[in-house]
Amino acid sequence: MSLTSIEDHLSAILATIEPTPPSAVAVGEALGLTLAEPVNSAVDLPGFTNSAMDGYAVRAADCAGASASTPVSLRVVGDIAAGDTRSLTLEPGTTWRIMTGAPLPDGADAVVPVEESDGGTSQVELRLAPETGRHLRRRGEDVAAGTEILSAGTVLTPGRLALVAAANVPVVTVRRRPCVAVISTGDELREPGTDLEHGQIVDSNSLMLAALVEASGVDVIKLPRVRDEAQAFSRALAEAAAAADLVLTTGGVSMGAYDTVKEVLSARGSVSFRKVAMRPGMPQGQGVVGPRDTPLITLPGNPLSAMVSFHVFVLPAIAGLQGRSVAADSWQAAAVPGRAVRGWRSVQGKTELTRVTLRNGAMTPATGQGSHMVGALADANALAIVPPDVVEVAEGDVLSCLRLVGTVPANSAHREGNGL
Amino acid sequence: MSLTSIEDHLSAILATIEPTPPSAVAVGEALGLTLAEPVNSAVDLPGFTNSAMDGYAVRAADCAGASASTPVSLRVVGDIAAGDTRSLTLEPGTTWRIMTGAPLPDGADAVVPVEESDGGTSQVELRLAPETGRHLRRRGEDVAAGTEILSAGTVLTPGRLALVAAANVPVVTVRRRPCVAVISTGDELREPGTDLEHGQIVDSNSLMLAALVEASGVDVIKLPRVRDEAQAFSRALAEAAAAADLVLTTGGVSMGAYDTVKEVLSARGSVSFRKVAMRPGMPQGQGVVGPRDTPLITLPGNPLSAMVSFHVFVLPAIAGLQGRSVAADSWQAAAVPGRAVRGWRSVQGKTELTRVTLRNGAMTPATGQGSHMVGALADANALAIVPPDVVEVAEGDVLSCLRLVGTVPANSAHREGNGL
Repeated sequence: MSLTSIEDHLSAILATIEPTPPSAVAVGEALGLTLAEPVNSAVDLPGFTNSAMDGYAVRAADCAGASASTPVSLRVVGDIAAGDTRSLTLEPGTTWRIMTGAPLPDGADAVVPVEESDGGTSQVELRLAPETGRHLRRRGEDVAAGTEILSAGTVLTPGRLALVAAANVPVVTVRRRPCVAVISTGDELREPGTDLEHGQIVDSNSLMLAALVEASGVDVIKLPRVRDEAQAFSRALAEAAAAADLVLTTGGVSMGAYDTVKEVLSARGSVSFRKVAMRPGMPQGQGVVGPRDTPLITLPGNPLSAMVSFHVFVLPAIAGLQGRSVAADSWQAAAVPGRAVRGWRSVQGKTELTRVTLRNGAMTPATGQGSHMVGALADANALAIVPPDVVEVAEGDVLSCLRLVGTVPANSAHREGNGL
Repeated sequence: MSLTSIEDHLSAILATIEPTPPSAVAVGEALGLTLAEPVNSAVDLPGFTNSAMDGYAVRAADCAGASASTPVSLRVVGDIAAGDTRSLTLEPGTTWRIMTGAPLPDGADAVVPVEESDGGTSQVELRLAPETGRHLRRRGEDVAAGTEILSAGTVLTPGRLALVAAANVPVVTVRRRPCVAVISTGDELREPGTDLEHGQIVDSNSLMLAALVEASGVDVIKLPRVRDEAQAFSRALAEAAAAADLVLTTGGVSMGAYDTVKEVLSARGSVSFRKVAMRPGMPQGQGVVGPRDTPLITLPGNPLSAMVSFHVFVLPAIAGLQGRSVAADSWQAAAVPGRAVRGWRSVQGKTELTRVTLRNGAMTPATGQGSHMVGALADANALAIVPPDVVEVAEGDVLSCLRLVGTVPANSAHREGNGL
């Protein structure tokens, strides 16, 4: 069996993925969701012409010829603060003291900054003749009412939510938050806290995958773990396919005798198993299940392989469900550069994804790259991508690194604690 | 009034912050929380000695002298797959075919890789004399039972949750997820979707702050917006102080006539207002409120100033509540480098935080740095830190950039949509 490229396998996965249906959501509930329809501003921004400076609102004509040597003196009618909702008028020959952001009174057509005055509060000397429109933020200069402010496919970040709200748009049409089901299989697996018998291990994998799904910003359905038994697995699969937008399985796909996942799914014909030219994570499967052709990805049962496979194959699939633009050749588009602090050996002919700790652009390979070394997995925060033709990474080499989901909040020094 | 440094103001904030109380949480519910107590492994990892290769489990003594020219022939008793829970024994002069990760049978003390054999399934010729212990993963070699695997203060990422589960630890002691209240003030503010009168604007700020808090991984309490009226504000403040671990206010702290927040809090004496040497975001306040001395931070009402202040002051405070180690001089520790695609002017004597779009290390300043330009805020994903003594950033200059919360999920090309 020849090896499939990462891109070909991912391409097959993405062919099964459609964005979730559009859904109308209040702007306050839309954080992290993707727009299914563009947003047009309901109002001008700014909504009214206001001052760009602390100073004096004037009629430019009243200040004609003003200079440091020949200041113009005007009577100060009062103060206008930001948020002042009064409808005010500027009479010729007078001025209002005005704060940054405060609405310009009717009749005014310029602002003289306080620095160009004697700062007077009842009478003021202005030392500048402003041109008409000077130091104003004009109604609609930022955004005109009716303008498209965000296009379909845009992810709603806090800043964009602020824009939508400021545009006086209370409801947005987004892709419904996807829901991913995780099915874990294996006779030898037990819950954490169980007395383990010989050969039994704790099922850390489904917990890790659920956490990765959750950290990706989508919902997770954790199904009860399934024994290596075809009927039980088929039942779990039917339940998952009905409830979720994407089904993940872990375990049961290697060459062993008890590979229920592979056995059941191979018989159905709607799932393809491939050996992908990557390490770890070679045994992969993908297809659809259930009456709605729910997409399915089978992940290897080994924790490191599952972690790597999640970042290479599942994240792009989730992005597709979210309605984000994603292509099979872009799986490493978000990678960031890392410079090797020390070298390591890699494998010829496969893309190797090496766990690394990436800090300030310096990349330290995790000790114990053996896929059983769960301890080393815990401190890694990225996967270095070693191309198939590279057999040795040398100190100082720069590689692309995929950040691990859930390890890199925005302000990582504060948020990753003492470990990273 | 002289200007306070960012570090001095942040230091005063952090002096009011204590970690939330410890709380016992099931490992499946602990994503993103911080350990209040270390975690010790309940079991050896691996839990049983297993094979590091696909091959044949042997007694090394049975293979003495084996080589390519003088192979040793052994009878194959059967196969042992990963997850096999049988208690098996290796009789002298025989072998079990064994898969990677499968438990070693009693009596075996080495594995001969399949590559060093003829691959036989009933009888096999082995061409290698392994030393005792060869190609085994010994019980406990990764982690010995009782060993501390994670220290207090560590953030529980998906990989670390997998380690805790694998260590057979069902419950961890973490800092309770903090809860942050947001109070927005301003007579001129309205909900999105309202018909706006002259001088009224939509309250985009409290929505943005709530989204920032949520994107930081903590809980948010959004209180009803408060008019610029002392009693109403005092009531909201009391409610927030009782319910939350941190209170944020927005608006009402500048020099205007209707600055209720400042007026009410100044009278109490437990809150200090300072002008901080930064732009935007100069008017800042911090202190404690309510009978439990709940920490409070007052943010400027202008959206850009509020966004910047959140990243400089509120994120470290949240990290402190979460039990993460944080110091006043580390507010920019998580910054990443960005190279200016084009230059811009900055201000002397203040740290300027310039909105930029950072992509592949290239940093483009957002157009419209005026603090009213909400449109430009929407596409920025970082704040470039321009030190106080720099008055001009030139093309090619490298600055430290703070990533904006909620714009940088782990796999950003897939997760930020077409905008970024």
